[in-house]
Amino acid sequence: MPHRHPAERYGRVYVLRLGHRPERDKRITTHVGLVARAFGANGFVLADICDEHVMASIRGVLERWGGRMHLECGVPGKRYVRDWKRSGGEVIHLTMYGLHVDDVIGVIRESPRPKLIVVGAEKVPWFYYEEADYNVAIGNQPHSEVAALAVFLDRLYMGEELRMEFPGARLRIVPSPRGKRVVSLERGEEVGEVDGE
Amino acid sequence: MPHRHPAERYGRVYVLRLGHRPERDKRITTHVGLVARAFGANGFVLADICDEHVMASIRGVLERWGGRMHLECGVPGKRYVRDWKRSGGEVIHLTMYGLHVDDVIGVIRESPRPKLIVVGAEKVPWFYYEEADYNVAIGNQPHSEVAALAVFLDRLYMGEELRMEFPGARLRIVPSPRGKRVVSLERGEEVGEVDGE
Repeated sequence: MPHRHPAERYGRVYVLRLGHRPERDKRITTHVGLVARAFGANGFVLADICDEHVMASIRGVLERWGGRMHLECGVPGKRYVRDWKRSGGEVIHLTMYGLHVDDVIGVIRESPRPKLIVVGAEKVPWFYYEEADYNVAIGNQPHSEVAALAVFLDRLYMGEELRMEFPGARLRIVPSPRGKRVVSLERGEEVGEVDGE
Repeated sequence: MPHRHPAERYGRVYVLRLGHRPERDKRITTHVGLVARAFGANGFVLADICDEHVMASIRGVLERWGGRMHLECGVPGKRYVRDWKRSGGEVIHLTMYGLHVDDVIGVIRESPRPKLIVVGAEKVPWFYYEEADYNVAIGNQPHSEVAALAVFLDRLYMGEELRMEFPGARLRIVPSPRGKRVVSLERGEEVGEVDGE
């Protein structure tokens, strides 16, 4: 059943984004949050700081495009990781220094434990490398935490996440070879394009 | 041979990033460029504007971590697309309104024509939808052009890109379950971690 949320089968998956330098990384953090939602995570937690712009962007997408995702910000990152492990979950830290994703994803996928995916900004404290059950590299090259999260979730769910439907959506896209076709699920009819998305 | 550059087999692949609002999208554009390199594109072209910070970041990564990639900025985006098509190439525009990547990637992969992947910022002019040979969605949900490019290239190269080696690299990571292990290929020995990456 490709349209169910993959997490129903694979268990709870949260993304923990480590605190960012507010101005510089704001847009990146928003992208991390939107990727978390679109690629099937059930939670997005912004550690250490609370950025209302970022959280509002993600909430806005959830309202228009649907999906249920736990949202939280300002929690102390280290404590969150410790609590996650204490309650039986496992922690996966995405880093270019880690083991190649294709060498560990099978083991991670088969584990039924709730998964916390830690996505750092630059200069991740050593603590996260040590506490992680898995340090995982999406290729051992520098690129982007946004890309790393997307490819990790895509591997975890074996591509099924890109077919899932989002409960509570008000809008849905009709895939199109050329135009912009959007259906309002409330009105049951096609509407114009959606600004800014 | 998983370590050869996938483009040797699949033909030339360039990424055209449409001009951005310099301050707001600078970091996102840098991530797009780094993903282009790490996921096996052979060219990164920043349309319409030239941002020296962005270009310097990407050049710095090429110098330290290797790889050959054509870099260019400030070219008029529309003309670049027209010229690409005129010289026999095809144009793939990544947009959430497009056809689902898994429905078209097979055809795209089999075509021997050079590929220009257009990655927009917000509000992409209609021109690109019309000129593209393929408008492709990485799932029909709003998320991130960084994620979209990574997953598109990962599908195109069937994951092989994450194993490729980069010619001319001065540094290489030794995948590690916990630490940060980096080898200097010039000195032939392990060095400490690399700051800021």
